[in-house]
Amino acid sequence: MAIIVQKYGGTSVGSIDKMKEIAKRVIDQRDKGNDVVVVVSAMGKSTDRLVEMAKEISQNPCKRELDMLLSTGEQVSISLLSMIFKEQGYDSISLTGFQAGIKTEGLHTKNRVAEINIDIIEKHLTEGKIVVVAGFQGMNENGDITTLGRGGSDTTAVALAAKLNCTCEIYTDVEGIYGVDPRVYPNAKKLDYISYEEMMELSSLGAGVMETRAVEIGFKYDIPIYVALNKGNIKGTYIKEYDENMEQKVITGLTSTDDVLMITINNVLYNSKNIATIFDRLSQSNVNVDMISQTAPKDGYVNVSFTTSRDDIGIVHNVINELKKEMEDIEIHVESNITKISVVGIGMMNQSGVAAKVFKIFADNDIEFKQVTTSEISISYTIDSRDKGKAITIIAKEFDL
Amino acid sequence: MAIIVQKYGGTSVGSIDKMKEIAKRVIDQRDKGNDVVVVVSAMGKSTDRLVEMAKEISQNPCKRELDMLLSTGEQVSISLLSMIFKEQGYDSISLTGFQAGIKTEGLHTKNRVAEINIDIIEKHLTEGKIVVVAGFQGMNENGDITTLGRGGSDTTAVALAAKLNCTCEIYTDVEGIYGVDPRVYPNAKKLDYISYEEMMELSSLGAGVMETRAVEIGFKYDIPIYVALNKGNIKGTYIKEYDENMEQKVITGLTSTDDVLMITINNVLYNSKNIATIFDRLSQSNVNVDMISQTAPKDGYVNVSFTTSRDDIGIVHNVINELKKEMEDIEIHVESNITKISVVGIGMMNQSGVAAKVFKIFADNDIEFKQVTTSEISISYTIDSRDKGKAITIIAKEFDL
Repeated sequence: MAIIVQKYGGTSVGSIDKMKEIAKRVIDQRDKGNDVVVVVSAMGKSTDRLVEMAKEISQNPCKRELDMLLSTGEQVSISLLSMIFKEQGYDSISLTGFQAGIKTEGLHTKNRVAEINIDIIEKHLTEGKIVVVAGFQGMNENGDITTLGRGGSDTTAVALAAKLNCTCEIYTDVEGIYGVDPRVYPNAKKLDYISYEEMMELSSLGAGVMETRAVEIGFKYDIPIYVALNKGNIKGTYIKEYDENMEQKVITGLTSTDDVLMITINNVLYNSKNIATIFDRLSQSNVNVDMISQTAPKDGYVNVSFTTSRDDIGIVHNVINELKKEMEDIEIHVESNITKISVVGIGMMNQSGVAAKVFKIFADNDIEFKQVTTSEISISYTIDSRDKGKAITIIAKEFDL
Repeated sequence: MAIIVQKYGGTSVGSIDKMKEIAKRVIDQRDKGNDVVVVVSAMGKSTDRLVEMAKEISQNPCKRELDMLLSTGEQVSISLLSMIFKEQGYDSISLTGFQAGIKTEGLHTKNRVAEINIDIIEKHLTEGKIVVVAGFQGMNENGDITTLGRGGSDTTAVALAAKLNCTCEIYTDVEGIYGVDPRVYPNAKKLDYISYEEMMELSSLGAGVMETRAVEIGFKYDIPIYVALNKGNIKGTYIKEYDENMEQKVITGLTSTDDVLMITINNVLYNSKNIATIFDRLSQSNVNVDMISQTAPKDGYVNVSFTTSRDDIGIVHNVINELKKEMEDIEIHVESNITKISVVGIGMMNQSGVAAKVFKIFADNDIEFKQVTTSEISISYTIDSRDKGKAITIIAKEFDL
């Protein structure tokens, strides 16, 4: 008899009928003698509808009140799901984030889990109940209802599993974690296992399956996270500590980000103050700069390139127009059809030459890359968006993703 | 500078536009230097929609979970209304029932307010905020979210006003309290004042404007309740302590209830056990018996009549079929087109003959009444539903309602 935390996202609880289907899966575990804590998101598109109402009032509604509003979404799902269990003869109780003891801190709409008092959940489990917890939400030290931001229900589930010291199962509408997004590369292979580090890198680079913070908590407390489809019995993917029995791959995953804006500033008079000024101005305007590259100084001048999201194009233009007034020599080029491709693999740490191998693939296939950055277990390239499909296909084939 | 509690019901907050209208009324008070606590219900028909979802799961859904579900309705309205105040430059905070310190006790879906800790509300008022409180809800001593049942938002408003020792204004979609329902008697006059006692009697007899419990709290703590239309500046009605300056009327109000079922059991062998058995069986089957009348015993037999709601017709038939097996002599008559008419007036206590005056009105107009019951300040009659319109019109005219 073990405790299991299962998380079901918005599409899994999109209607009463869908809730009844997932209730069966939970009851299966209960019938096997396991204690189940179910974490659920808001029903289908209900969060979007709530946001729309707030937008009718203000383009930038008070975030404390937005949290108050959005948290009702999960409260609806937990109560309905708990009713379903009771109707089927299984004792159950629903708990909002704060009732489940989830204390948070930080800014409204993007709080972090600060602490969980697990007593209430344990009491109800001891009494034989299926405990249904609202994902995505908690309460801060002022007693305000808070939300955890994007992917917050995953965070709730993994944090609860960490505190209960049990496995965490994330049920979703994909069959598990893939080396490459199957929508981009249809032959993509599902992984049986992926290490926390690789998953965090993939998540932070834009793979949408799991939010980085949730994986980080799993990593920190060594809680295996099982990601699988919300129906049938198709084997999913375990996110767990790297061990040598896991398949040895140089590259585990590849992720791509479209809508990248690449700005190149040529002829910057080479001194540290100038470069600092550029990025300081961008930062003050809340432009999120991703990759930065700089050429070696030549004749006292350097060229600097950086990428950001295409959403920021307006602000970026304002900033560089201001810069032009101060740095008369500079020339500015903006490219807006850029895709960033990143390859991730814990195996890279032991095997050199991955970057070179990708360079060779690009050269053999006439793909021009614009920038390269590397971290311990990942390498990112920016390329022209027209080359994206080709680049992903050949890298995926070469590295057996 | 005073504190005012204003309550707005579901139709007043049915859309963002309607919320903006009531926000103006609140802001008017704020601009005059008053501190305002706004109590709101769920938006329009949102509670009905939540109930429908629960009914998809069960005809009798778990009431604890139903409270969890329904309480989201007010949480949506308070957050949106508070956003509106902030957007218009007025500091504001929304509070759910439990955040506002409302502790309740009793059965789920029909809790009572047990205690209010007013500290949080007072703190926010001191900080100059418009405090928006979710009506209809609170938290019990187990930490479960609870609701107060029908008319619960009125109860929240009056209870808060009692605790803050201030006036309570209930804004609704009628212009105030009428002696007779204007939908039934178009010439009905709006009252300037009505005593707590008369209002409680009218409410408990079925007048839908205010819930009895809310008026009881006003009575207990002597908090004047002002009931008025949610737009314009039409003068409404004060519910307050009876005083001699209030207009002297024998009858203040008249209320009618349709869909009454009248059951007459003739030839009941006269002993206390038999009568007790009849009403005990009805009570065990959860039939809510209203008026009871019994003839004087004759030849060792009595006739008993009672009324109940037509909704209970199925259960009542089952009960009387069982009774027939035990009491062979009895004859049973069921009449289903019965209306109950009640006249209420604190003036009755000092003026005798009101019942007689009504009897005379009925006789003069060929209206046959079937049963009569009296309380200190009310008299109720059951009549054939066909006579309802005529009876209301002539009583209303005669007593200037």
